[in-house]
Amino acid sequence: MKRILIIGIGAGDPDHLTLQAVKAIGRTDAFFILDKGEAKHDLVGLRQDMIKEHAREPYRLVEARDPERDRTTPAYAAAVEEWRSRRADLYEAFIRDELGDDETGAILVWGDPGLYDSTLAGIEEVVERGGVAFEYEVVAGITSVSALTARHRTSLTRVARPVHITTGRRLAQEGPVAADDVVVMLDARCAFADLGAEYHIYWGAYLGTPDEILVSGPVPEVADRIRELRAQARERKGWIMDTYLLRRVLPS
Amino acid sequence: MKRILIIGIGAGDPDHLTLQAVKAIGRTDAFFILDKGEAKHDLVGLRQDMIKEHAREPYRLVEARDPERDRTTPAYAAAVEEWRSRRADLYEAFIRDELGDDETGAILVWGDPGLYDSTLAGIEEVVERGGVAFEYEVVAGITSVSALTARHRTSLTRVARPVHITTGRRLAQEGPVAADDVVVMLDARCAFADLGAEYHIYWGAYLGTPDEILVSGPVPEVADRIRELRAQARERKGWIMDTYLLRRVLPS
Ligand SMILES: C[S@@+](CC[C@H](N)C(=O)[O-])C[C@H]1O[C@@H](n2cnc3c(N)ncnc32)[C@H](O)[C@@H]1O
Ligand SMILES: C[S@@+](CC[C@H](N)C(=O)[O-])C[C@H]1O[C@@H](n2cnc3c(N)ncnc32)[C@H](O)[C@@H]1O
Repeated sequence: MKRILIIGIGAGDPDHLTLQAVKAIGRTDAFFILDKGEAKHDLVGLRQDMIKEHAREPYRLVEARDPERDRTTPAYAAAVEEWRSRRADLYEAFIRDELGDDETGAILVWGDPGLYDSTLAGIEEVVERGGVAFEYEVVAGITSVSALTARHRTSLTRVARPVHITTGRRLAQEGPVAADDVVVMLDARCAFADLGAEYHIYWGAYLGTPDEILVSGPVPEVADRIRELRAQARERKGWIMDTYLLRRVLPS
Repeated sequence: MKRILIIGIGAGDPDHLTLQAVKAIGRTDAFFILDKGEAKHDLVGLRQDMIKEHAREPYRLVEARDPERDRTTPAYAAAVEEWRSRRADLYEAFIRDELGDDETGAILVWGDPGLYDSTLAGIEEVVERGGVAFEYEVVAGITSVSALTARHRTSLTRVARPVHITTGRRLAQEGPVAADDVVVMLDARCAFADLGAEYHIYWGAYLGTPDEILVSGPVPEVADRIRELRAQARERKGWIMDTYLLRRVLPS
């Protein structure tokens, strides 16, 4: 039986790799690498370095160009679905054409494969289509959420309280209403910027990498600085990945 | 300067350790181990095995008995606070009495140190008291949430949707209202049991260990089985750790 490993590689630091991930990379025959275009080349490079470091010869690299996603449409979910299905075509071709029987293929996924990542859904779509037989396994990874709180040396959760993880788009629409502790990911627009001083923000960009930036403080005091640092960094590197925790200060 | 490392060790599988954690263990002079009493001895054992495997001689083990927590009081948060302060006493004594200047001490924390864990707050309390000078650093770990979704090969988040992480106590009080995807931790009472068939549950106990149990399905179909498996396992081992994801099925 062909086998696919969906391996979480952590959120930026090569040492985020777990021993389980290292072993999984070590038993892989062919790695499937999606090239995300010029700007995000650093991210592909990190994966290639990990493979070079931990894979066992002989292994193969199979590269494909990530399908473009329509980022202008307001129908965000639909655009993601369509893009995911084109990705499933690529996964299916990889499994069918590039893996021999009894061979193991791997896809290295940023952070943890369960958190805002479409690889699993793409592989599930290949399973549903039924065109190619294979087994698959998921290897958990360090999330950017854990990276964020570790670097700020703060806890994600407060005693006996919930935490809500959401997107920048939703925060902009709904505000941080679902919990007193809210993590925001995929925010292209600093949706936190209008919150009041009762919100403390722990912000991090390029976490775990040499470019890491950390800022924290009451939102009104640090919002401008974050906006500036973010714009500069984005300009300089061509891409940015940032995430933050909003913590509502409770009367004590 | 004395230095403390708060190291996330993952949620049960020794291979959840990250390379960063392995390196951190390797540069530790003294490990602080809290004994949680007979029943949870497996958990202390796992930590000791990791130390044996990855620490560099010479190193020291410093053991202390974890203070008892009053689990009967309805004032849950207050009981946790009080217990945390007694724990801070232990951390303070460890740093003051057991570490030489320029030495590194480590505390190995289950899962990720940011998720429902009191070690960080305890260390912060030692900092605030100001009685002993030290630096500290946090090493992110694989959470039981990532372990759960990886083993079920399901995504934690759906496209562009939030996820809520809460406790069994809160689920019992509020129901799964804050999001269509809710992770429940620290649930001693199967608070999910009365939910209807629109809720799919992904349940896991002893994730990542040889005792791992996984069950998933619509809540009404699997609730009794989970309750039974849970009671049996708890009886057999003397303790249980389980967590689950509730996913409300959306009309498509
Ligand atoms: C498509 S999601 C993937 C998340 C990933 N699976 C994880 O577990 O963190 C990408 C988002 O994750 C966050 N992110 C990922 N890596 C990050 C990093 N190194 N620093 C800051 N944010 C990061 C950002 O919010 C980014 O928009
Ligand atoms: C005090 S919290 C600590 C959580 C930990 N810091 C983490 O990152 O997962 C303990 C709760 O975590 C969950 N948990 C931890 N390890 C687990 C495992 N191996 N299997 C199932 N649940 C686990 C259970 O809900 C348990 O009640």
